[in-house]
Amino acid sequence: MPYLRIVPRRREFIRVAPGELEATRLASRPRDIVGRYLADIRRVAIGSPFATSQAIHERLTKVKALAVFSSDVLSSSAYATEEILIVLLLAGSGALPRALPVAGVIALLLAIVTLSYRQTIRAYPSGGGAYIVAHDNLGQAPGLLAAAALMVDYVLTVAVSVAAGVAAVTSAAPELHDLRVPIGVSIVGVITVGNLRGIRESGTIFAAPTYLFILAMATVIVTGLVKVAVGDAPGSLLHGAPPRETVVATQGLTLWLVLRAFSSGSVALTGTEAISNGVPAFKPPESRNARTTLTVMAFILGFLFLSVTFLSSRYGLVPSENETIVSKLGREILGQNPLYYTYQVATALILFLAANTSFADFPRLSAILAKDRFLPRQFAFKGDRLAFSNGILFLAGTSSLFLVVFGGEVTRLIPLYAVGVFVSFTLSQSGMVRHWWRLREPGWRTSLVINGVGAAATAVVAVIIAGTKFTHGAWMSILLMLALILLFTLIRRHYHWFEGKIRVPEDTLDIKPPASVPLVNLPARQHVIVPVDDISKVTMAAVDLVRELSSRVTAVHVADDREEAEQFRARWEKMIPDIPLLIIESPYRAFVAPILAYLDSLERVEPDTAITVVLPRVVTHRWWERLLHNQDALRLKPHLNKRPAVRTIDFPYELERGPASA
Amino acid sequence: MPYLRIVPRRREFIRVAPGELEATRLASRPRDIVGRYLADIRRVAIGSPFATSQAIHERLTKVKALAVFSSDVLSSSAYATEEILIVLLLAGSGALPRALPVAGVIALLLAIVTLSYRQTIRAYPSGGGAYIVAHDNLGQAPGLLAAAALMVDYVLTVAVSVAAGVAAVTSAAPELHDLRVPIGVSIVGVITVGNLRGIRESGTIFAAPTYLFILAMATVIVTGLVKVAVGDAPGSLLHGAPPRETVVATQGLTLWLVLRAFSSGSVALTGTEAISNGVPAFKPPESRNARTTLTVMAFILGFLFLSVTFLSSRYGLVPSENETIVSKLGREILGQNPLYYTYQVATALILFLAANTSFADFPRLSAILAKDRFLPRQFAFKGDRLAFSNGILFLAGTSSLFLVVFGGEVTRLIPLYAVGVFVSFTLSQSGMVRHWWRLREPGWRTSLVINGVGAAATAVVAVIIAGTKFTHGAWMSILLMLALILLFTLIRRHYHWFEGKIRVPEDTLDIKPPASVPLVNLPARQHVIVPVDDISKVTMAAVDLVRELSSRVTAVHVADDREEAEQFRARWEKMIPDIPLLIIESPYRAFVAPILAYLDSLERVEPDTAITVVLPRVVTHRWWERLLHNQDALRLKPHLNKRPAVRTIDFPYELERGPASA
Repeated sequence: MPYLRIVPRRREFIRVAPGELEATRLASRPRDIVGRYLADIRRVAIGSPFATSQAIHERLTKVKALAVFSSDVLSSSAYATEEILIVLLLAGSGALPRALPVAGVIALLLAIVTLSYRQTIRAYPSGGGAYIVAHDNLGQAPGLLAAAALMVDYVLTVAVSVAAGVAAVTSAAPELHDLRVPIGVSIVGVITVGNLRGIRESGTIFAAPTYLFILAMATVIVTGLVKVAVGDAPGSLLHGAPPRETVVATQGLTLWLVLRAFSSGSVALTGTEAISNGVPAFKPPESRNARTTLTVMAFILGFLFLSVTFLSSRYGLVPSENETIVSKLGREILGQNPLYYTYQVATALILFLAANTSFADFPRLSAILAKDRFLPRQFAFKGDRLAFSNGILFLAGTSSLFLVVFGGEVTRLIPLYAVGVFVSFTLSQSGMVRHWWRLREPGWRTSLVINGVGAAATAVVAVIIAGTKFTHGAWMSILLMLALILLFTLIRRHYHWFEGKIRVPEDTLDIKPPASVPLVNLPARQHVIVPVDDISKVTMAAVDLVRELSSRVTAVHVADDREEAEQFRARWEKMIPDIPLLIIESPYRAFVAPILAYLDSLERVEPDTAITVVLPRVVTHRWWERLLHNQDALRLKPHLNKRPAVRTIDFPYELERGPASA
Repeated sequence: MPYLRIVPRRREFIRVAPGELEATRLASRPRDIVGRYLADIRRVAIGSPFATSQAIHERLTKVKALAVFSSDVLSSSAYATEEILIVLLLAGSGALPRALPVAGVIALLLAIVTLSYRQTIRAYPSGGGAYIVAHDNLGQAPGLLAAAALMVDYVLTVAVSVAAGVAAVTSAAPELHDLRVPIGVSIVGVITVGNLRGIRESGTIFAAPTYLFILAMATVIVTGLVKVAVGDAPGSLLHGAPPRETVVATQGLTLWLVLRAFSSGSVALTGTEAISNGVPAFKPPESRNARTTLTVMAFILGFLFLSVTFLSSRYGLVPSENETIVSKLGREILGQNPLYYTYQVATALILFLAANTSFADFPRLSAILAKDRFLPRQFAFKGDRLAFSNGILFLAGTSSLFLVVFGGEVTRLIPLYAVGVFVSFTLSQSGMVRHWWRLREPGWRTSLVINGVGAAATAVVAVIIAGTKFTHGAWMSILLMLALILLFTLIRRHYHWFEGKIRVPEDTLDIKPPASVPLVNLPARQHVIVPVDDISKVTMAAVDLVRELSSRVTAVHVADDREEAEQFRARWEKMIPDIPLLIIESPYRAFVAPILAYLDSLERVEPDTAITVVLPRVVTHRWWERLLHNQDALRLKPHLNKRPAVRTIDFPYELERGPASA
């Protein structure tokens, strides 16, 4: 067996078994100059490639896990209150105190969802994302809906979080306000490069900003509450808000408006599902640690969200375009000092971290979908650094697009957000209901009830959000989800059809002895065509090859005029009389088109014969040689490559060595 | 012979002889959509293609010939006087009257050159351009110098004529002055398209503007002379110039300055050689008609040039940036009326026609050089419309570059111009001296003396121009000529070397019977490699082909990890046990690089075996199919095409039909 004679050399291969080599990094480097140059650029940008075996699996303590999984959900406290206030403000500044009861209902919803997800974690210790849970328990269609909802949601998480993070920055530095779109897109760029480099959900990187944020928020909230308690704040603890700047109502304070405010505020819950996806990353006992962490997270979020809403009411804050509510709160309570700036930086950082979590989740989900053949296979390829590069790049592109289209404004993005989350919540909880019903493990009744309540509550919320926000942008998310489901289905159908076409049964035995009868006695199964422009050593070498390939051979010469044609035929018949020569006179001096027309004719006349075109060409080594030798074969090739019924043989002729080592 | 069975169908081919087809226009059309679309655009822009036999050969009467050949030379009267004045103005406005004697010397030179070229026309009735005459009589090096000089000159003719034509326009419409570069480049564009369409030197197109210009100029001149004679002009007929606006001298009126003025004025002679190139276009008796036309042309030029110089002196005209001397003269003499505008339009038109003559001459010269292998072969290709498209486009590009770099200003271009003309004059006349000396035909002595005087005079002028204008720009032209000669030589040397490498002696007889021994008994002359990613029908079909090609075959599978590798080997050995399988584990998930590294190893280990790589691929019909099937073969192919020692076989597999009609 010839491969046995390969002696691994220059450290390119390691022989691991007979007939099996392992390519080292040297053998995996691009071999051409351009490729190497690009690889060098990429190495500087995203680092040296990792071998598959270098994947790191870090187990997280509860403290680190909280940092890793909570940035998404906690960071929403930075904008959820404000979004409620913005909607209520439509009914005038007098309606703003209604934010507190709305926030209370959302906190209740948070409790329900948290309890629900505790069940999921128990049932899916290896990770129970909405796609998996819905697909396993409800079937393919709900699974795909969950997947589509999640994908839309991940894109929006990046857009909203980055926009809110930039708003935190521009609140502290208003002169940057007009630059928010380029700043936002740059931050997406930095996160993208980081993820292409393969930063994993490393606890250490995440811990600092998350706990800094919690600390900063807690400082503001506690100080604020104390100030309110001792009467050092504009409003008092019990007796409502202070007089605020009056904003005139443009709408009545209808139930519809309150529901809209509720919808806007419910974005606070996005990210609650994160822990249920990542149970295996916890230290053992994984499931229990994960559940504890989830509960702690929910409490922290509830505390931050309710406190911010309460304090912004007591401080009489009114939303404005250039500064966030959270920033106003910090500035009122702390004063405009370094502490305030630290607080703003911490807010911005946790929001950017929240965007980063989508960069882990989106590519992972698309890789799962690609493996299930619902997305192109490229999404399942791991890049040099073991990251799903295509998913990362796709997410970066689409989220940047959203940032640009919506001017980097959180309030304009919010109506698109949250629909997806609550759809996936609902599907996931419904799946759990089905799960408990089917398995009936010990304690299944309690779990079923909890997930049932969760499913019902999130379903109602999903409907409310879709209804109240439909015309404001939710229609876009819904349309996107439907389009994604259609795309998944079509892609799956195509792959299915394709695999059916090329599948070979596993028990096939395909073995044929090499031809043992003389070639001349075989009927020619292929007609070999060789275009010739001259009679040279290149022609001779090509003719030599062609003689070996088949007994049915035609040399084709395209001539500009009759006279040249006759001269050529005379020389040909004198020098290479055994190969039939067809001359095509081309009065319009076309070369490619007449040859293709001739191949068409052949296909019509000899439908049962394979057509092989041999394309002789001289190997050029320098760019100016390519300018001086305008090779016909190279012009013909791209056209032949498009034709299904024609095989082409690229026949390089090296001037110094003759035809390729023959 | 298989080609006999081709039945010409759908009017694509006409059978002209056994084994000889003629492609109709239908078979010469691009066959792919993009190509057709581009062809449609081209057809709209430059017209339907002409067959080679459609070349038109128009014979010209003397009247038409004068129009065709004289635009270049006559049009220089529109700027030659001004260029003399601009140089003299450096010595103050008092020096301007010196223009008349300078113009007188140039007129004398014109007479000498005309007499000289009459001899050339007599000796070369089939056309005697400087390249041909110098090459024939003096040898290759002088021939190439003449060719280089002419090429530089043709480029500058376009740049200078267009710039001067635009100056004629902006003199009448000063508001266009700042747009002169874009206007100039657009005019080059129009002329280019016209020439790509294949407008030939049609007498009818040329006659109108040329005779209009002569008529308009004559009107101005005769009116002017009459006014001067009757004392109706600022200056009188005999007693010198009128008081003009005083310009202070910045230099003394040295001999050097006068010689510089002479150099600038000598551009008037450019184009005198045109008729000698085109003798065969005259009606018989060609030679005599051509000589008569040349003489008439010289007289007209002399009259226009001397008159303009004389009148601008008597009208006390001083060159200025925004209006040409010729325009000032017309306005002073005619007044600013429709007659004046007609005169300006005629001037602009003849200048654009002058540029157009270079578009006939430059591509023709480069085609001759390409046939002699001094330029890339592409320059000898005739385009759809029988024009040498590459030469036309090259001329358009370079002359536009000159226009842009020199800001479309005639005065800045003039120092580069005329060196080339006089170098080619000198070489051409010297060649004629040699010609007469060798052939000694009747009357050779007179001709030899005339050409000798011509050669000497033009040589002196060439030296004067190169010297006085060297630092002002002539160095660029000289450098360009030298660079061109170097390029010609290198190109010729390369083609010579290349032809030596591939030449086959005419008396070779290359005939070999097809293999008559069983294939298995032959030593395998090629090692066939087939990359496989899966065991599918595509793989099976490729393996089938591979078995036919050689008894030495290796299938190569690139695996991401050990486990997958072992599974694949087990399936392979069960299903296709007769083909050896090499597995390359690629821990860095690279595909192309390890295969190339493996081919490197093979080339080292089996240097005497040809390597053929079979690249199976599924034929995709739609763009989205290409997105879904990320085919490895297509990624490998461009890399293999760069390797001289590897043959590649493109093996298309059609899902509906299986491997290409096999």
